[in-house]
Amino acid sequence: MDASLQQRYLEELKAFLRIPSISTDPSHKGDMLAAAEFVVAQLESAGMRNVGLVERQGSNPIVYGDWLDAPGKPVLLMYGHYDVQPPDPLDEWKSPPFEPEVRGSNIYARGSADDKGLTLILIKAVERLMQRDGRLPVNVRFLIEGEEESGGEHISEFVQSGDTRLKADAAVICDTEMFAPELPTICVGLRGIVYGELHVQGAEADLHSGVYGGAAPNPIQAIAEILTALKDRDGHILIPGFYDRVQPPSPTEREAWARLPFDPEHFRAQEMKAPAITGEPEKGILERMWARPTLEVHGIRGGFTGEGAKTVIPARAVAKISMRLVADQQPDQASAQLASAVATACPKGVTAEWKPFHSAAPSMTDPNNKFIQVCAQAMTEVFGNKTVYIRSGGSIPIAGLFDKHLGIPSVLAGFGLPDDNLHSPNEKLYLPNFYRGIEAIMRYLEMLAGVTK
Amino acid sequence: MDASLQQRYLEELKAFLRIPSISTDPSHKGDMLAAAEFVVAQLESAGMRNVGLVERQGSNPIVYGDWLDAPGKPVLLMYGHYDVQPPDPLDEWKSPPFEPEVRGSNIYARGSADDKGLTLILIKAVERLMQRDGRLPVNVRFLIEGEEESGGEHISEFVQSGDTRLKADAAVICDTEMFAPELPTICVGLRGIVYGELHVQGAEADLHSGVYGGAAPNPIQAIAEILTALKDRDGHILIPGFYDRVQPPSPTEREAWARLPFDPEHFRAQEMKAPAITGEPEKGILERMWARPTLEVHGIRGGFTGEGAKTVIPARAVAKISMRLVADQQPDQASAQLASAVATACPKGVTAEWKPFHSAAPSMTDPNNKFIQVCAQAMTEVFGNKTVYIRSGGSIPIAGLFDKHLGIPSVLAGFGLPDDNLHSPNEKLYLPNFYRGIEAIMRYLEMLAGVTK
Repeated sequence: MDASLQQRYLEELKAFLRIPSISTDPSHKGDMLAAAEFVVAQLESAGMRNVGLVERQGSNPIVYGDWLDAPGKPVLLMYGHYDVQPPDPLDEWKSPPFEPEVRGSNIYARGSADDKGLTLILIKAVERLMQRDGRLPVNVRFLIEGEEESGGEHISEFVQSGDTRLKADAAVICDTEMFAPELPTICVGLRGIVYGELHVQGAEADLHSGVYGGAAPNPIQAIAEILTALKDRDGHILIPGFYDRVQPPSPTEREAWARLPFDPEHFRAQEMKAPAITGEPEKGILERMWARPTLEVHGIRGGFTGEGAKTVIPARAVAKISMRLVADQQPDQASAQLASAVATACPKGVTAEWKPFHSAAPSMTDPNNKFIQVCAQAMTEVFGNKTVYIRSGGSIPIAGLFDKHLGIPSVLAGFGLPDDNLHSPNEKLYLPNFYRGIEAIMRYLEMLAGVTK
Repeated sequence: MDASLQQRYLEELKAFLRIPSISTDPSHKGDMLAAAEFVVAQLESAGMRNVGLVERQGSNPIVYGDWLDAPGKPVLLMYGHYDVQPPDPLDEWKSPPFEPEVRGSNIYARGSADDKGLTLILIKAVERLMQRDGRLPVNVRFLIEGEEESGGEHISEFVQSGDTRLKADAAVICDTEMFAPELPTICVGLRGIVYGELHVQGAEADLHSGVYGGAAPNPIQAIAEILTALKDRDGHILIPGFYDRVQPPSPTEREAWARLPFDPEHFRAQEMKAPAITGEPEKGILERMWARPTLEVHGIRGGFTGEGAKTVIPARAVAKISMRLVADQQPDQASAQLASAVATACPKGVTAEWKPFHSAAPSMTDPNNKFIQVCAQAMTEVFGNKTVYIRSGGSIPIAGLFDKHLGIPSVLAGFGLPDDNLHSPNEKLYLPNFYRGIEAIMRYLEMLAGVTK
């Protein structure tokens, strides 16, 4: 790809990244629309047809566009999302999250890797083929949503709607990462998720800790009691029945994982940057992150958290909690098990309530599927290394929805890198992967033209 | 007291309460000075001499004033404070915290009971005697500080300074409450306190809980582990050596407490307003609050606490924690014991640090002291009920400092009520106690003139 083309793609990526399209924050509604309109313009200039917004009440619109002039050839559903995670904590960013900055070979901005950069890879691959050939080798439909980071309720409804715009042979989901730099990677397993809040209430109002301390219930201490009753110090989740449906990885998959270039000490010190790797000691590290369910607290607030000292026993405390699920766990069942375990663990003097927000089922794809095999070949060609199959600990609910409601496999071709700081300060995208990603998707579409539908 | 006088005192109290003198919040520095100047003006119009500010670098000034023209009579040090607790959570106030509002017999505002209303009782008692008699029956010195709610570091230095303005025979501290309405009360025991923050750090930056969940340390979970290792579900503190110096109440004191009008169910439902009374089951409820040490979390923050969902494993979490101490526990020793217990309880993958902010020793006074006995008689006269002796679970560090450095007893004559919502939303003062408090202190000074110095 020549330098001037790279420069143009980079400028368009920057324009996309400047839009603070934070879907979990209602005050960014206008930015969500601006990002959707940006995608509309991109699809139009890529030569897509029927470009427009799929809107539902209260939703951030899904952007649709298609090109279906390759009769007899497969139809690919290209999925990405234009919404991003909140950028806080802001003071840990080296450059502002919505002012993209190139430093070295990386571009730093919220959404650069998750998922605006990867979404643009799909669009630019199609645009370049259209500009070069005046047509595409296969049929494509784009489905770019704006609620991936906030539960994806509306795309879930749309996928279940029976809309003819969803008819396809396979999906390409560009929202994952490569296992290591230069190592093309397809993800064949994703964890599901149940996300919600744990509310604990003690007294009606905050109490003076001098006057009442010793006899008053403390909701923060109560949350601590509940959290430690739900998970032990070794990372074992103590919720009754929770592990019953967990399927262990096959011996073949375990062997493949063992061959991956994974150095635990490098992972700890250079990637995770933590004092120690934790979790279930009897499980392998990749297994803990890919094939084991989790229970994590994402945030907690309660009582006085301002400057200095205030001697209150708070009336309430709230923790944001998720469970990542693996096949064959079921979100509704896991959520009910958690609710029941919270009720059992709740100490005297407080009430505790689990309020689930949203959930997604775990998903697994057969790596022998032809859409996956051809994509692996295209990536191997462009990157010059053999494509590996991994799982991801993350949750991409749409893969499970495509499987369940459209009956199509999802090809998770990822071009992020493990150190991209997804959901964290200083999120970045490795720019050579942005350009090679475009080439790999172009090659994939070309090669796919030879596959019997 | 006639109605027009009451009305004038009430208006002056309102003016005092309108100043948001929050000493723990550096942004209120100007308000602190405004409150100090208000006290200066009050002392001057009460006829005090040598009125002025005792200032130290970085401090909120202590307001001093005296009247020493009663040779041979006792010198009383009158203590109060003009600073208040932060008012949050703001949305739970029925009327704004710094816009005092009279509803029924109460005045609602932050600082009404703690301690602006009670401080004004001392000043108004002296002002009224001066206006009536042109002189006082005993000698008085006022010491009104502005850092009671933020550690009182500077008054502690001042009390230790050897300044001649501190020479007195006894102190009157007006910062406590009556055990029940109509029941005049002197407090003879106070808990001490150690207050600080527990900082827990995991990875360098927030991590994506999908990618790393299962192998990454979680500082919120770690704080939960530490908190539950420090205190069990029954309220027993598990810090090694923590209870070693705790002195149980004497049989006489226990008997007196048993005679107090205390109804646990009324206390739970009407005063504490919580689902249950908690704490050490084998101890009496008053003993838990007055004569047993505590460990309480006052606030916690970590990770994402905004609207909606964010799937991070946070890099760090912070909890504000205090220990209330009882005689003969020592703050420095208790703080060191806590630091050591935190280190022992700290789970793998995180670092934990206890950062103490400030502390105060517990204090006990002999109820047979003549300054206490005379005060009890004065209060009995004005309120028409026999004065009772109680302890308080709160911490008034100045009492310990007066004892240790000035060698004088403190008379804790309180006119607050148990339902005054100290440190909480809707703090209030029962106005009849404001007026009777002024009369009781007037009577006390008159009766004290007969006491041999």
